[in-house]
Amino acid sequence: MPNKIFTRDDLDNMERIARLKFINCLSGFKSGNLIGTADPTGHTNLSIVSSVFHLGANPPLMGMVMRPHTTPRHTWENIQETGFYTINHVHKDITSAAHQTSARYPRETSEFDAVGLTPEYTTTLKAPYVAESQIKIGLSFQHHLPVELNNTLIIIGEIVEVIVPHQTILEDGFLDIEAANTVAVSGLDRYHYTTGIHRLSYAKSDHWPEEL
Amino acid sequence: MPNKIFTRDDLDNMERIARLKFINCLSGFKSGNLIGTADPTGHTNLSIVSSVFHLGANPPLMGMVMRPHTTPRHTWENIQETGFYTINHVHKDITSAAHQTSARYPRETSEFDAVGLTPEYTTTLKAPYVAESQIKIGLSFQHHLPVELNNTLIIIGEIVEVIVPHQTILEDGFLDIEAANTVAVSGLDRYHYTTGIHRLSYAKSDHWPEEL
Repeated sequence: MPNKIFTRDDLDNMERIARLKFINCLSGFKSGNLIGTADPTGHTNLSIVSSVFHLGANPPLMGMVMRPHTTPRHTWENIQETGFYTINHVHKDITSAAHQTSARYPRETSEFDAVGLTPEYTTTLKAPYVAESQIKIGLSFQHHLPVELNNTLIIIGEIVEVIVPHQTILEDGFLDIEAANTVAVSGLDRYHYTTGIHRLSYAKSDHWPEEL
Repeated sequence: MPNKIFTRDDLDNMERIARLKFINCLSGFKSGNLIGTADPTGHTNLSIVSSVFHLGANPPLMGMVMRPHTTPRHTWENIQETGFYTINHVHKDITSAAHQTSARYPRETSEFDAVGLTPEYTTTLKAPYVAESQIKIGLSFQHHLPVELNNTLIIIGEIVEVIVPHQTILEDGFLDIEAANTVAVSGLDRYHYTTGIHRLSYAKSDHWPEEL
């Protein structure tokens, strides 16, 4: 396929929204997650993010990027005030409801009610899970790293609870998120389902990886 | 589907490798990218990472998580010494070669040679692109954020060049990474291709999102 090369000047000269859409696609496929929080009085909030990333397994840590000066500001305030949040996978059947949580609702409106998703609690943490999600993670807020280059924050949480369907857990510990219909996200607004190509064996320098 | 709930104790008591595989799946789908670098003498290095994430569009920034005490240590050394690296999307036809870059090769072996991928250069930066990749991004290293909780680093780079097939660029700036056969990754070792569900309109509180 013939290529187009964008110099940095080309990028800087793109129309603002087109550049936003374009740059958002460049990192590859992203996770699609709903962040569930509550304020200290129990008033719930829900917001979709495509910026959750794996940070480490031991201790079990996850990161996510937040833009505190735009949405989802209420999420970040609730995390600071209560110390807890949930990460809930978006699956095929709830993409529109999940996407709709990014609309600017007034603080007194819970996005759960506005988009028709159901808050669900365990005794472990005060943040609400999304009942409709298949894969749900409860986190305790640990730390935030300010990124001065663009005034964003990287929020780091430690996993305190995981809720997954029995049938998605494979023998070796691997979790079949595809079987849970978890979606992948590209750019600002596109949702994808996936088809497995293969799992590959741990790479060693003396032989080619094998399909597991 | 009936659920299994993992408490934090359950996670801590899992066998080490099983826990590693399990926790790595929890963030959802991940990007699959090859990081191309060279040392100051031009000796090349290539390593697969699933930790690249979008950090911001203006300025155009990308982040990635590195574990400097394990692999890919040579990548991080080269980034520090030269100030440049490339991010190259893994697509359907190169998953095995890409995966194999994670084997521990001696420093004098270039993973490009070892796995059969081809270094390619522009005049903009001294780091090698992967000729076989469809979507390639050149970055200038800006900053690293140490994550003390688990001794990882978040490496932040600013985009200086983007090379993409003409036919993947849509009218509104959106990039069709699915048309470029970019894969999604889950956990440590599974590769997926994607099928688009829909793009959804910018969310507004007074109406439901529409398919674009």
